[in-house]
Amino acid sequence: MSDQIEGRNPIIEALRSGRALNKILMSNDVERHTIIAEILHLAKEKRVPVEHVTADIIKIKSLTGSPQGIIAYVASKEYINIHDLLEIVKQKNEPAFILILDGLEDPHNLGAILRTADATGAQGIIIPERRSVGLTDTVARVSAGAIEYVPVARTVNINNTIKLLKENDIWIVGVDQSGKRSMSDIDLKLPTALVVGGEGKGISSLVKENCDEIVSIPMKGKISSLNASVAAAVVMYEVVRQRNI
Amino acid sequence: MSDQIEGRNPIIEALRSGRALNKILMSNDVERHTIIAEILHLAKEKRVPVEHVTADIIKIKSLTGSPQGIIAYVASKEYINIHDLLEIVKQKNEPAFILILDGLEDPHNLGAILRTADATGAQGIIIPERRSVGLTDTVARVSAGAIEYVPVARTVNINNTIKLLKENDIWIVGVDQSGKRSMSDIDLKLPTALVVGGEGKGISSLVKENCDEIVSIPMKGKISSLNASVAAAVVMYEVVRQRNI
Repeated sequence: MSDQIEGRNPIIEALRSGRALNKILMSNDVERHTIIAEILHLAKEKRVPVEHVTADIIKIKSLTGSPQGIIAYVASKEYINIHDLLEIVKQKNEPAFILILDGLEDPHNLGAILRTADATGAQGIIIPERRSVGLTDTVARVSAGAIEYVPVARTVNINNTIKLLKENDIWIVGVDQSGKRSMSDIDLKLPTALVVGGEGKGISSLVKENCDEIVSIPMKGKISSLNASVAAAVVMYEVVRQRNI
Repeated sequence: MSDQIEGRNPIIEALRSGRALNKILMSNDVERHTIIAEILHLAKEKRVPVEHVTADIIKIKSLTGSPQGIIAYVASKEYINIHDLLEIVKQKNEPAFILILDGLEDPHNLGAILRTADATGAQGIIIPERRSVGLTDTVARVSAGAIEYVPVARTVNINNTIKLLKENDIWIVGVDQSGKRSMSDIDLKLPTALVVGGEGKGISSLVKENCDEIVSIPMKGKISSLNASVAAAVVMYEVVRQRNI
């Protein structure tokens, strides 16, 4: 679980100080004070997703017993924005190597992927703001320190981000078992963003359409998919292999 | 959590019927009845590890409130024995491809590895009886069905098992960052058993000495190790790659 902040004043202070927040939960029955309006305004400005939930959910999630209808979840690490990530990529003396995670939900998978991203020299990870695990305490712990070294950007809309990456001459390669070509049959030495889907659901269909290429991982058995962090690792190491030949 | 059976008669019935058990917890203060002697005898015969614990631990673990000093944990799948595993390997029309997990503790990792073993066509997995996660319900769930297809053998002593595999002309390849050679620099088309260590601890030193070869995975970042199921997957897919060229 990530650390949480409860109540209007503590949350507005956290927002004003620029502290990184994964998300804010707000009760549907919260009174529309000026301070609530300011929280919503700052959250929008700082790109912190706000989820409107029932009063019961706030009650269940509260640890202090006095959340005043609002709880914020602190991120274990600052997110960077996409443009800064592109800047980091450009400053490296090697082709782009980015990972886009389309709807990963399990913090153990994100933690394991951060370790693999560090190990394979990936330049950064992009995750969606909603319906995705963020940089929580569990992710930080599981990442075994890699969270400090691998930049993570959040985006409101993965498809817009893919468009931006394409404008920067980055090849978008989805990893999905529907792919007709195997990962070893395409050129991963090109500037590449790999797209890996969430547990169980895989890559969403619109994102899949926006990929330049869909590649599959060889599967010789009876089960049709790998664990998400394993699938990501196998293709990331294929990038390493091809680039080192 | 795996299902558990409590009390002397239910456990002796489970043992007599040949039901697969991961382990038996026995209280230190249990009275040495004939039935306890028979349980110990059957457990030894069926190779079910018995852990002697304090009465308090039995009390905490009991779900029924009347464990009579003894709790057994049911396995979600039968283990096979090493000789049957070697028979399976021999019947395949391809070189041996076995995975030895030296002290894996996290059921999520074992579940993910079972999926990867199925996907890569590994012929079986060997785990130690003690200080290792077994085939629990969590492992079965995380394996997404792969537990039904990948044979798992348990051994009292990994070093004796390695000796037996060597006698069967199987090459023992440890995966450890101390390895001077990279995984792509050795011939994995030979009949091979890969040895992967547990989370945090890695391969134990005696097991490492008994390996024919220690290979490392390329690491380009600041973190020194990968998640155990990721490390296993990366090398297992290197086996697939080399064998398909």
